[in-house]
Amino acid sequence: MSYKAPIDDLKFALKVHANLDDLLSIPKFNKLDQYTVSAILEESARFTEGVWGESNRKGDINGAQFKNGTSENDESLKAAYDAFREAGWNSLRVPEEYGGQGIPTAISSACEEMWYAGNVALSLLPLLTNGAVAAINAHASQELKDKFLPKMCTSTWSGTMNLTEPQAGSDLAQVVTKAVPLDDGTYALTGQKIFITWGEHEFNENIIHLILARLPDAPEGTRGISLFIVPKFWVNDDGSLGERNKVELVSIEHKMGIHGSPTCVLQYNGAKGYLVGKPHHGLAYMFTMMNHARLGVGIEGHAIAEAAFQHARNYANERVQGRDITSKDRKSVTIIHHPDVRRMLLVQKAILEAQRALYLETGFYLDMISHHPDKEEREKSLMVVEFMIPIIKAYLTENSVTLTNLAMQVFGGMGYIEETGAAQYVRDARITPIYEGTTGIQAMDSIGRKTAKNGGLIAQEILKNSKTLLPLLIKADAKKLAALLEEAILLAEDAVKYIVTSYQGGQIAEAAAGSVAYLMQMSTTLGAVAMAKAYLAAINSLNNPKEESLSPDFYKNKLKTVEVYFHYILPDIHKYHRQLKSGGESIINIPIESI
Amino acid sequence: MSYKAPIDDLKFALKVHANLDDLLSIPKFNKLDQYTVSAILEESARFTEGVWGESNRKGDINGAQFKNGTSENDESLKAAYDAFREAGWNSLRVPEEYGGQGIPTAISSACEEMWYAGNVALSLLPLLTNGAVAAINAHASQELKDKFLPKMCTSTWSGTMNLTEPQAGSDLAQVVTKAVPLDDGTYALTGQKIFITWGEHEFNENIIHLILARLPDAPEGTRGISLFIVPKFWVNDDGSLGERNKVELVSIEHKMGIHGSPTCVLQYNGAKGYLVGKPHHGLAYMFTMMNHARLGVGIEGHAIAEAAFQHARNYANERVQGRDITSKDRKSVTIIHHPDVRRMLLVQKAILEAQRALYLETGFYLDMISHHPDKEEREKSLMVVEFMIPIIKAYLTENSVTLTNLAMQVFGGMGYIEETGAAQYVRDARITPIYEGTTGIQAMDSIGRKTAKNGGLIAQEILKNSKTLLPLLIKADAKKLAALLEEAILLAEDAVKYIVTSYQGGQIAEAAAGSVAYLMQMSTTLGAVAMAKAYLAAINSLNNPKEESLSPDFYKNKLKTVEVYFHYILPDIHKYHRQLKSGGESIINIPIESI
Repeated sequence: MSYKAPIDDLKFALKVHANLDDLLSIPKFNKLDQYTVSAILEESARFTEGVWGESNRKGDINGAQFKNGTSENDESLKAAYDAFREAGWNSLRVPEEYGGQGIPTAISSACEEMWYAGNVALSLLPLLTNGAVAAINAHASQELKDKFLPKMCTSTWSGTMNLTEPQAGSDLAQVVTKAVPLDDGTYALTGQKIFITWGEHEFNENIIHLILARLPDAPEGTRGISLFIVPKFWVNDDGSLGERNKVELVSIEHKMGIHGSPTCVLQYNGAKGYLVGKPHHGLAYMFTMMNHARLGVGIEGHAIAEAAFQHARNYANERVQGRDITSKDRKSVTIIHHPDVRRMLLVQKAILEAQRALYLETGFYLDMISHHPDKEEREKSLMVVEFMIPIIKAYLTENSVTLTNLAMQVFGGMGYIEETGAAQYVRDARITPIYEGTTGIQAMDSIGRKTAKNGGLIAQEILKNSKTLLPLLIKADAKKLAALLEEAILLAEDAVKYIVTSYQGGQIAEAAAGSVAYLMQMSTTLGAVAMAKAYLAAINSLNNPKEESLSPDFYKNKLKTVEVYFHYILPDIHKYHRQLKSGGESIINIPIESI
Repeated sequence: MSYKAPIDDLKFALKVHANLDDLLSIPKFNKLDQYTVSAILEESARFTEGVWGESNRKGDINGAQFKNGTSENDESLKAAYDAFREAGWNSLRVPEEYGGQGIPTAISSACEEMWYAGNVALSLLPLLTNGAVAAINAHASQELKDKFLPKMCTSTWSGTMNLTEPQAGSDLAQVVTKAVPLDDGTYALTGQKIFITWGEHEFNENIIHLILARLPDAPEGTRGISLFIVPKFWVNDDGSLGERNKVELVSIEHKMGIHGSPTCVLQYNGAKGYLVGKPHHGLAYMFTMMNHARLGVGIEGHAIAEAAFQHARNYANERVQGRDITSKDRKSVTIIHHPDVRRMLLVQKAILEAQRALYLETGFYLDMISHHPDKEEREKSLMVVEFMIPIIKAYLTENSVTLTNLAMQVFGGMGYIEETGAAQYVRDARITPIYEGTTGIQAMDSIGRKTAKNGGLIAQEILKNSKTLLPLLIKADAKKLAALLEEAILLAEDAVKYIVTSYQGGQIAEAAAGSVAYLMQMSTTLGAVAMAKAYLAAINSLNNPKEESLSPDFYKNKLKTVEVYFHYILPDIHKYHRQLKSGGESIINIPIESI
């Protein structure tokens, strides 16, 4: 485990992109200060680099196994999880009324980046628990909240999400699990759920399952799905645990990666549970949590890539092979001297810095939705978040696959050997563009609900605002960057117009065939906008060294990484823009039976 | 195992891109005819779709294990390999004087595509054997040839290549394995070799190791390396097997993929062997085989992607999920109806067709190097092959990673489950851009020896020749394709000039940092050239239906897939060209310690 939390990068990004000063001036957060934020980040780093990260390889090697009706997991994971609970890390994200610290999403997201980077498979356990906490807190009765939340918030109990069934993956309209009302006001649930992360294990004394199911009178489709709570052990009125519920672990999947986390098939055989909120509103309740969940998976993808990058950089600085092509010296050098190895590392570094900016900025707006004193600002923030979520989810997770593969490539043949650890990052990363809505689903959300539906107004507004950076770049003597950014913004505006016009003209299939290209073009452009902002902030810091806590070298490096982003990453938009504008049509022209 | 050999595609590509008619008119091959070629392809398909392909999953699940000093392999692999030997498939590629059929490389390559697609891990065993056969045949004395080749050519014995050592990966100058002359004219070899594919196993009664090592008086670096033969069992003068040689299996690597093939660490403890050819010429001997070996790995990458594509297409035609966005009908449909799923499949299909054209065309020129009656044509063919080899190796293997990942994405969550089989293709493909020279090494070869060294003449010649397609496209009423192709050729010509100028100006590091972009730009452009050729051939066939054996639908589909290539794949060049021309500099500007 060679991962070191990128504290300086996180501090910089929190300040520049998550507008930390503004954030801490919001009444809800004004008991926090810069000092506390730094302390949280540094303590989280220490924790991650210790017991948490150290269990990562072991969890992969000794993956979760089906044994005696439960999941057997590596002991080191249990130790790491216990330490997580004891240190109270879970409280960072839970509601204050249940003992949480109520810190901004932007800051907890920065800590999450570390935990995911350190051990993604184990991170999923508290992640799912917090998702369940949020759903119960938002939609369940006070009685149910009081029954379940206190123990879930302290990670004494864990939580799960049971959505998928064999015939109902992305298409939840197909859910058939049944919930039959019982005389005592509870329900009996019957059906099979698959892909349940940490669905059964013995790290917690109880597991609280959230389940989508249909009542007997439910209408067909998505409007007939309700949300239920089914505890693994029944919880008596005095809080003590009662009998084992009728939910059975059928099997644990053999996955390509995240071996440390048991992905379960659960069979509900008349298991007893509670209805959450109103009947038939289950899917709507799930959707209210979607922004947070998709942001989380985006960060997950980003974090795995950061860990893989550091691993590759360490190797490139150690491995001696070949000679320096620019020198007459015939001495062997470390491979980081080779220009293509530097290219591979810097592509990772530049994209990672842009991604960190994007997710922390989105985290800031997520906080503004709930906590900005001004209603108009709250509404505007919601629009920005809604637009950004498919971008964060898709861009950071597709990049996770690309970047972890690049990191592995740095290792050459050694990268293919599992003991080196590079392959685990590739395998772990591979799930991120799939779960919580595939890239294709994010892209459809982006062109449809987030672009065409509002006539492209949000997208155009974001792009228009970005143009304020152009004169600032010119003033900072970065004319080339300004020209490249302007070109990118104009092409992005044209892409938005194309999507809106396609929808208006009924060419939805063509637009859909180009939807991933659109999403990637927007992502890459907004990455450049973020990097331009970082460039200006770095220039400003270099000009005002007294106010800064980071070293001048940090800012100088930032300027150079921005150049790499503009000259090596941003060119992607020219591909995407062409794919969008004529590629979609060429695809739709081919009949399905000819593929 | 859902793989079906793409016979029609192979026949078309052999005719159009490997110039089958010209090939068969070469004196050396004129005993072959179209009928025989078809029969070979069809028989190879039957074999691959049978016992060969059926062992693929089993070989992955029951990967090679170290046991009692040897490798234990799944029984199904042994059965498939025995069937391969008994059917005489090995003879397709061995020299005629040892019972081989001496058929053209282009045609044997088409069969290899099938075998790799069916079971890449097992294919490596005959692949390595044939590599060893070629090296011995080209460089060893008649006595050694007579001793080893007859049994190797029938796959009675297998062969290996021992190049890599822990400190000598891509940098073979670092090889330290020692060879000490003995009184009887043989040598005692001592040292450790790693990454030896099928280095130890019991599928053959003997294994013939080819080893790079240093004689006591050897100069340092690459000019002090000699090539040796060390048989696992000593071969007596009467051909019977003697005592076990002092070569020991130390361990079998745990790899991300190709689990069916044992990747061995071999320890030579004074093992007895023969010198091949002259002392200190070992590396040069290895280089003579490089074109074939790199073509082979390119085909390997391509073939795995073809198998993954077919697997994904089958799933997309079966899996019901979601509704047709272009229809008011609310009925559920198979996912191939979704435009983004079609996009994923057609990107694979278009690239695979271009790749098949490229490798078969290169195979044709490889045959011309040895067999064209005209010396000037032989020399010209060598230049073309030398230019194309890094392109085939890098483009087909980098695409292998991208395309197998796209295939997996079609499966959604099911793709991440190993039982589905999609993940195996991703894992197996991942080694191809690494071994036999990483993509970075191919790119350095491409910009240096294959471009700058000859002043860009070969590249410009190839591009110039491609322009003859432009008026033909216009005549065929494909003006848009002609315009796109012309633009691509002009940008490629500019890229060549940039490389040549950079070398002349001493900006080698900048060029090297953009070398992969250059290689990919050339590959994508030449892919478009090949697709344009296919387009014209298809038009021609549609206009002259009587002469054709393939159905009109085949040609009609071809026209449409070419459109996808031009509108969805070719746009990549705009990214690569910008990366090359300004990206390299931005990378070199960052000091190593700041990465």
